[in-house]
Amino acid sequence: MVHPVLMLIGLVVLNAEALLAYKTVPGTKKLKKLVHITLQFLAMFLSLVGLWAVWKFHDEKEIDHLYTLHSWLGLSCIIIFSLQWAAGFLTFWYPGGSRSDRASLLPWHVFLGVFLYVLAIATSVTGLLEKSIFMQSAKMIGRFSTEAMLMNSLGMMLILLGALVILAIFNPGAGKIDTYRGSSE
Amino acid sequence: MVHPVLMLIGLVVLNAEALLAYKTVPGTKKLKKLVHITLQFLAMFLSLVGLWAVWKFHDEKEIDHLYTLHSWLGLSCIIIFSLQWAAGFLTFWYPGGSRSDRASLLPWHVFLGVFLYVLAIATSVTGLLEKSIFMQSAKMIGRFSTEAMLMNSLGMMLILLGALVILAIFNPGAGKIDTYRGSSE
Repeated sequence: MVHPVLMLIGLVVLNAEALLAYKTVPGTKKLKKLVHITLQFLAMFLSLVGLWAVWKFHDEKEIDHLYTLHSWLGLSCIIIFSLQWAAGFLTFWYPGGSRSDRASLLPWHVFLGVFLYVLAIATSVTGLLEKSIFMQSAKMIGRFSTEAMLMNSLGMMLILLGALVILAIFNPGAGKIDTYRGSSE
Repeated sequence: MVHPVLMLIGLVVLNAEALLAYKTVPGTKKLKKLVHITLQFLAMFLSLVGLWAVWKFHDEKEIDHLYTLHSWLGLSCIIIFSLQWAAGFLTFWYPGGSRSDRASLLPWHVFLGVFLYVLAIATSVTGLLEKSIFMQSAKMIGRFSTEAMLMNSLGMMLILLGALVILAIFNPGAGKIDTYRGSSE
């Protein structure tokens, strides 16, 4: 199905690359910022297409909309993500807020961005979970089938990826590495 | 059922209170630390009882163990939580590591603690989701029933609670509030 692939590429992979752009992209701050907003724009665009894809799938199969917790989490994620993108664009790019507005918004922009990344991972995990239960209930796959184990493993790896991305952003051990003082320690 | 109640009290409520003990408990650092490890010990104990409760429930109803992503996440959470508790106890309480060991471990202890809190919330959300799907599949509740909507709302509130607890720990806007310079600003 096209929905999970678009969501994972958009809200998990591109979102992570955009969050890490400030650490990974060489060059000026302006260039890092341009890479960040461009990747986040693509992430937002793919997530909106991914939402449309699952909505259409529900319509075709005559399945109710928005009755699961996964759908509530996902819709909240996309709405907040879009608002965050728009607020970030207007304040940090064009037309750009005053120096003090930018300084006030920045910690909240970072916090909300990390929150949205965690929410995207949590939403993916609930999506994987509900899909395997639906397929097990319909006897399409068994409880310990290769497919079910693969989906569970993907969920576990998404949690690990999320932890590593957040770790790469904040790097709590960085102080220790930076103050490396020779091989005697 | 006893499982979700014990898990929510242990890994969500007591865990949050323990994480926030350094901000909320007045008095010496030693007292804050004692409150922290005591609450985390209770959290660990309740989560182990909660695990036993659901294991027994599965045995009685002859349901397979550990086939859902929820169970994988939950078991990982409890195992890592117990290891983190033991490592924290040995290094920061008794017998206590050297000054440099404690300094090296602290950022990782904080990072892993926050990770475990987020994982506990994510695990709760997957538990709520799978329970409503199981009950809907068994025609015990409807897709838009009061019960289903209540469980979805509880999931949304857990996500909000998680965000607020993490916010209270790191407080990204604190710099702004602390540097409050009168009503003219």
